[in-house]
Formats: sequence, structure tokens, C-alpha cells
Amino acid sequence: LNTLKLVQQKLETALPKGRVVLFSRDDHDEYTKDYSSAAPVEPSLIVEAESQDEVATVLKVANDFKVPVTPRGTGTGKSGGSVPLPEGIVLGLKSMNRILDIDVANKMVVVEPGVITKTLQDELEKVGLFYPPDPSSYKICTIGGNVIENAGGPKALKYGVTAEYVVGLKGVWANGKRFEYGGKLYKNVAGYNFVQLLVGSEGTLGVITEITLRVRLLPKVQTDILVAFNSVEDASKALLAIQNARIQPVIAELMDKTCVKAVESFLGNSIPNSHAGAHVIFQVDGNDSDHTQKEAEILSDLCRQHNALDVSLATTDKEKEVIWNVRRNVSEALTAFSEHKESVDISVPPSKIGEYLSHIESLNTSENHCVLGYGHLGDGNIHVNILNLGHSQEKWATLFPAIERSVFQKAVDLGGTITGEHGIGLSKLPYIDLMFSEEDRANMKAVKAVFDPNAILNSDKAI
Amino acid sequence: LNTLKLVQQKLETALPKGRVVLFSRDDHDEYTKDYSSAAPVEPSLIVEAESQDEVATVLKVANDFKVPVTPRGTGTGKSGGSVPLPEGIVLGLKSMNRILDIDVANKMVVVEPGVITKTLQDELEKVGLFYPPDPSSYKICTIGGNVIENAGGPKALKYGVTAEYVVGLKGVWANGKRFEYGGKLYKNVAGYNFVQLLVGSEGTLGVITEITLRVRLLPKVQTDILVAFNSVEDASKALLAIQNARIQPVIAELMDKTCVKAVESFLGNSIPNSHAGAHVIFQVDGNDSDHTQKEAEILSDLCRQHNALDVSLATTDKEKEVIWNVRRNVSEALTAFSEHKESVDISVPPSKIGEYLSHIESLNTSENHCVLGYGHLGDGNIHVNILNLGHSQEKWATLFPAIERSVFQKAVDLGGTITGEHGIGLSKLPYIDLMFSEEDRANMKAVKAVFDPNAILNSDKAI
Repeated sequence: LNTLKLVQQKLETALPKGRVVLFSRDDHDEYTKDYSSAAPVEPSLIVEAESQDEVATVLKVANDFKVPVTPRGTGTGKSGGSVPLPEGIVLGLKSMNRILDIDVANKMVVVEPGVITKTLQDELEKVGLFYPPDPSSYKICTIGGNVIENAGGPKALKYGVTAEYVVGLKGVWANGKRFEYGGKLYKNVAGYNFVQLLVGSEGTLGVITEITLRVRLLPKVQTDILVAFNSVEDASKALLAIQNARIQPVIAELMDKTCVKAVESFLGNSIPNSHAGAHVIFQVDGNDSDHTQKEAEILSDLCRQHNALDVSLATTDKEKEVIWNVRRNVSEALTAFSEHKESVDISVPPSKIGEYLSHIESLNTSENHCVLGYGHLGDGNIHVNILNLGHSQEKWATLFPAIERSVFQKAVDLGGTITGEHGIGLSKLPYIDLMFSEEDRANMKAVKAVFDPNAILNSDKAI
Repeated sequence: LNTLKLVQQKLETALPKGRVVLFSRDDHDEYTKDYSSAAPVEPSLIVEAESQDEVATVLKVANDFKVPVTPRGTGTGKSGGSVPLPEGIVLGLKSMNRILDIDVANKMVVVEPGVITKTLQDELEKVGLFYPPDPSSYKICTIGGNVIENAGGPKALKYGVTAEYVVGLKGVWANGKRFEYGGKLYKNVAGYNFVQLLVGSEGTLGVITEITLRVRLLPKVQTDILVAFNSVEDASKALLAIQNARIQPVIAELMDKTCVKAVESFLGNSIPNSHAGAHVIFQVDGNDSDHTQKEAEILSDLCRQHNALDVSLATTDKEKEVIWNVRRNVSEALTAFSEHKESVDISVPPSKIGEYLSHIESLNTSENHCVLGYGHLGDGNIHVNILNLGHSQEKWATLFPAIERSVFQKAVDLGGTITGEHGIGLSKLPYIDLMFSEEDRANMKAVKAVFDPNAILNSDKAI
């Protein structure tokens, strides 16, 4: 504790007045947790940095005194990645939220890490540009968080995940030394790819203070199509037929019957075709409305050929709202109906989705719990929800870990991963042995030690 | 030399009969060099491995005796990356050339590193799939080499470079331990991204023995368009206008007047519009011939609006052959006309190409040498050729390094890189200080040391 007092003094001397804040339970509850179910932890100090210099100062002092640092954006992560350590520093980045450069000619943008994803998307839209990655928290999460966790989202099906857009990074390694790699470049093979080493590194190697992203031209037309299928299998086959017809949907969001029924109860409205085995929201986009309409028609026909019960197209915002209403309420509905909900984000080769979903259905051995999946049909990334509907806390404490392990194990057995877009963080550390050998983990730790010799930066997480 | 005798014996015992070959100047000249101008070096032993086990054996023995190993595909690299070390082992991978799995449903393929790029493309085409990366050596280079150098090519403009297709790697770290990362996955954020650390690592970290690539559906229609512009500036502006009209060319290959004139002399035929300031080959593709034709027409109109002297479309193979004839002969023509030719592959933000080309033109201070550029207009990647046309060898030995450094320096000054697709290898090591600080290089070397503690694997190169 004397150490922390000294650290506080050093930081107060080196940083602008008011920057160093002593944690208080009443005022700073948000800093104890993220959007996962990881248990809250109280840090000692909070610094919301406003520049790369301030980030470097915090890391230097933390190294001098070997005090843990937990970087943080807006804390919307789903794996506990920004849950702090006791007697540690939270290094907040949400105030570094300037869009530094929108370069229309090169189709590149340069941003600070605290920019909200939707803010960037809105600003780009004004000049006809498009940043596709769209994690469901896009209205409140930060680009820095998206980069450090390599966030995905529904549009990854056509447009890929965050990693594919990151071409340059500036920041500070955990050891306090600054780095700058890449830039407004479409091709660059000089040196090891430390840009992509940092992407998805879950805040364990360094703190990013500036990001260069390549962006796209905004498609002029978007059409959403809601399809009710008899079964998930039919939906999967339909998607394959659509792609073979050379139509690449932007989105193919799947909800099974359990999800739709839960939303129906939650909203108190009857949802059309709620008895269907699977609902899928497709989106097609393009720049020629005739061409996109033709694609939407072909897509609809192919769904009907795969036993679709109903197909509805939406082009106006109002029609789109109706289609997305169910999907937007799934998470909240499932939370409302369960005493404990754990949502994980496994990913498997897309052709294995049917087999995977059958497996998780087989885990529903009691009416007191439910395991179900919804998510991204085309890219194999499924949000599996494990719900306690009525087991006692004691019973659930023994049942839950076995169910969760089985959910992860099956994904790995099918050639998949235990996390498609949320990261390992704290939540999945107990299952990391399913993915990595002791030797793999030792290698990752040795690479971390190159940049973080005192193990001060998020060292309790990810690897 | 006693050590090498021992190494030879150990390898002969551990490997199948005939696998270990003693280097002989007469029989194995190809093993001394690659397609760069790096000076040939004679190794001591050659092993063309046929399995991951054999690769692991070679690396284990090499570690035991601390003998250098240089991995090699077909040796078509352009930066000296597979030039061996004296008293070292060449570890050849071209015999590991099986396509292990073409997975149409998941749009993934699994291949060994020795598969020729064109062979893979041809096999995929038979089932309607498409692997876009197309380095100019695609008929003779290997996928393994493409991955380890992160090869680009003309189609990168629309479809990206090799890195964007690599989703899984198996192999052996330099220390002899095996690795396996990723798989047939579109989303995977578990652990550090060692897949992308290996891509472009120039054979300094490990040897890849199996590669999983995602592939695309083959577009049904392709149209090539050759345009003669007044100037490079007009060509750049036209491309921007084309992209803003929401047409993304697959290819935009630029040749300046000097290139075209050189080919004209070389072939002894007159080339139409050879007096034009710049020739650009565009390609557009799609799945609906009406739609693609419409795009080709809009593109042509936009070129004419930017002072195009001539626009010719090609849809048949024969017409395409005519259009590509000049481009295919550029390299050979320039070689024929010069006593020494060095070709480098800088990359800059696309909007800086005009400024960059003006700079290299300014280096033409004597009729006895010529610096010129051709390459990939849209992605900023230019092949700068530095030609000695008449200087004495002595004069050139002093002039050339200054010219080459200026060629690289200007790229870096404009926010670019000294290598867009060939790698640092040996050829660009003298200029690595332009890109990386001493500390950056120390960090890369420390990461290498995690996987190659005895520094046996290509340790003279890349970083």
C-alpha cells in the first residue's frame, strides 16, 4: 500500500492536475467490471489518459514500481478483458476520442482508440465511406477495444472482421517504449507483422494510442430479407445455394425457435411464424438498385426452394426495424427469463453448424436449464447461451461448468475455436487448455515478456 | 567441417535413403541463389523434405550442431530470402506439393507448401473456386513461398494480398517443436495471432508444412481494358473517379512511357500509342455479364473524361493476350537494355504515387542510367527499376547505392514502405534503418529468439 501511495505521488507529479483519481466504490463502480459475467474487482487508481505521452508516463511509473495496469475503453467487452486487479491502475482511453484524419482519396482513416465505433461510421457515411465491422455494442464500444479484441459482427460474413481493416498502429509497449508500425498502406511486408500481433492481443502487450484503418466505399443500396425456415439445416443449405449463385450476403443472422419464442414472451406480442425452426435475417447490398433487387429476388427464390415458410423483404428503415426487432431483443429476453445467463461465442467451420447445434440441443437434459444458439450463420460463429431457468444455485454451480466445457469442447472437436469475437479474457481462461498446449502458452508468454518484462499489463488474462 | 560431416551422418541415419544430398557446383547451381540479384552462395547439404517429420528432423539436428538452415521453395523470391549460407543446409520444400483438401462447402483449401500457385488456381477453377493472389511468378512459385513472403500481385487491388487468405498453419518452429494454429475458421480470436506473425516472416521463425487458405467463388465474367493516358496524373485521377463511381477494378497495372518504349524496341514491333505518358490495364469482373459490361463502359467513359488517348476492351483470350503483351515483356525488355538492373518494390499511400514518380524521374541525371517505375496503380505498390545503361562498373558502384537509397528514402518520407511484396531478405537489409529503429530490430530479434534460440533459421535475413 505504501507502494501505491508512492505511485500516486509520482503520477500526480508527472500528469496534469486532476488526471489521477483515487478509486471510490460509490463513484467508480463502472471501473470494476465489463459486460461479461466476470466478478467485479476494485482497482486503486484510475487515469483517463488524454495523450500518448500520458499513456507512456503511466506505463513507465507502473514498471518502476511493478504495479499492474489494466487498459480500458468503455468497458463493453464480453470476456472480462478490462476487469482490473486489486491495488492496480486502470488506464482509461475513452477520452482519446478524436478522429484525426478522414482521407477520402486513399480510403483510410486515422483515429484515437476512444472513438465510438458508430461515431466513426456516421462520420464516414457523410463522405460516402464505410467501416463495416459492427459488433452488437457498436453504439457504445470503442475502436480501440474493437482492435485489441479483434471484434467481429454480423457484416463479417461479407466484409471480414476488425483485423482486416487495421493497417497501422501507434502506441506504447507495456515496457513504456513507444511504437509505430504500418500506415496508409495496402501492401507492406517489411519486418514482422507486429500490427497483427497487437490486434486481438487483449491489452497484454501494449496500449494503442492511434489507429490507421482502411475503409470502403459506402454501398448505395441495402436490402434486408427475413426468412422463416423449417429447420436450421434448411437455412444452412439455402445459404450455400445463395453463395453458389454468386450472391454474397452481407449478413446471415440466425435465430432458432427457442430464441424467437423467448422474444415473443418477452415483448408480449405474437411474432409471425414463431413456430418456425429457424429465422434468418439476410442482407444484400450493392450500388445499382436494379442489380441488388435482382439479387434479393434470387435469394428469396432459393430460400423458397429450401422450404422457407415465409420471406419478407425490407428496403425502408421502418420495414428494416420490424425485421430486426426480434434479433435486437434476443439477448435481453433470454436474460429476463433466466436466473443466470452465460453467453459464449464459439466458432466452427460453417459446414459444421448443424452438427454443432444438435450437440448443444443434446445438453438440454432438464427443464430447469436451456442451452441454445443464435448468431452468424455464414461464418460459423455462434453465440451459445447457457441459461439457468430453475436449478438451485448449488445444483447450478456443479452443473454449469460441465455444460460450459462441453459447449467449448465440441467446438474444438469440430475444428473450431472457443472464441470467435470476444477474446479469452478472464472468462475463457479455464478452457484455454482446449486450444493451446502448455508449450503454446509458454511461447505466448515468452513473446509477451519481450514487451512486458515486468508483467504489468493485463497479465492475468488471455494467455 | 568435421561438424558438417557429423551432421550429414546424423541426417542420413534419421532420414530415408537418398534424402541427404551433398552440394555439388555442377549439379546444384539453382540452390545457390534466387531470382534477386543477391550474390550466389554455396551450401554444404541439400535436403528436399517430404514430410513434417523430415522437416522436424532436419531442424532438430541443425539445432544440436548449431548449423544454419535456409528453407526454400522453387527459389523465385526477389529479395535473396532463400540464398543459403556457406557450410549450411538447404531445406527444400518443393516436393511437399500435395493439395490435401478442397472444401467447397466451407470455401477453404488445405495444401502443402510446395504446391505451385497456378496449380492450385487451376484445380480450384475446376470446382468454381478462386484463389486471387497472383505474384508475377505464379506459374513457377510455391504457395509456401507466397505465404512466408506475404506475396502480392496485380489482383491485390480488389482482392488483397496472401495474408488475407491464410487462416491456418501447421509447421515446425526453428527450435524443432511443432505448431498448429487456426483452421477452417472465418473468426478466431483465441491467443496471439501467430498465423499472421508467421506470414511474411521470411523463413526466420519456422518452417510451414501445411497451409489452410480461405478461397472465393470464381467470378463468371472478366473484362480487360487497356487505356493510353496523357500522363500518370490523369491515370491516377481516372482511377479515383472510377472507384468513386463504385466500380472496384480487380487490376490497375501502370506502365510509363519509358517502359512501353523499351518493350517496343525489345519486340521490334510498333506498339499503338507508345508516345502516351502512361498505359494502364484495368480489369473488372463479376457474375452478370450485362452488369460487368455496364461497369466496363462506365470505366471507359471516365477514362475518356480524364483525357484518355485510347481505350480498348478485351473479353476473349486472344484480345486479352494483345493487351497483356506489353506488360509481360517489360521486365525482360528492361533487362535486355541495361548492363545492370535492380528492381525494387516500394509502396506508398496511393495518393502519393504522382509525387513519388516525379521524384524518381528526377534521379535521371545522366543518359547512362535510368530510373523508372511500373506496377500497381491503385494500391500504391510500384516496381522501381534502376538501370545502368552505360556507366563504367566503377562509376556505377558508387552511383548505384546512392540512387537506391534515394528510391527507398522517398517512399518512407511519403509514409510508405521499402517493400510492398518481395520482403526485406538480403537485398534490402542495408536499408532497414529507414523503416525500423535499433529498438524495433532488437524487439524483432527477441521475438525470433523465442522460437529460434540457436539462431539457425535464415538468421542472416529480413530483420
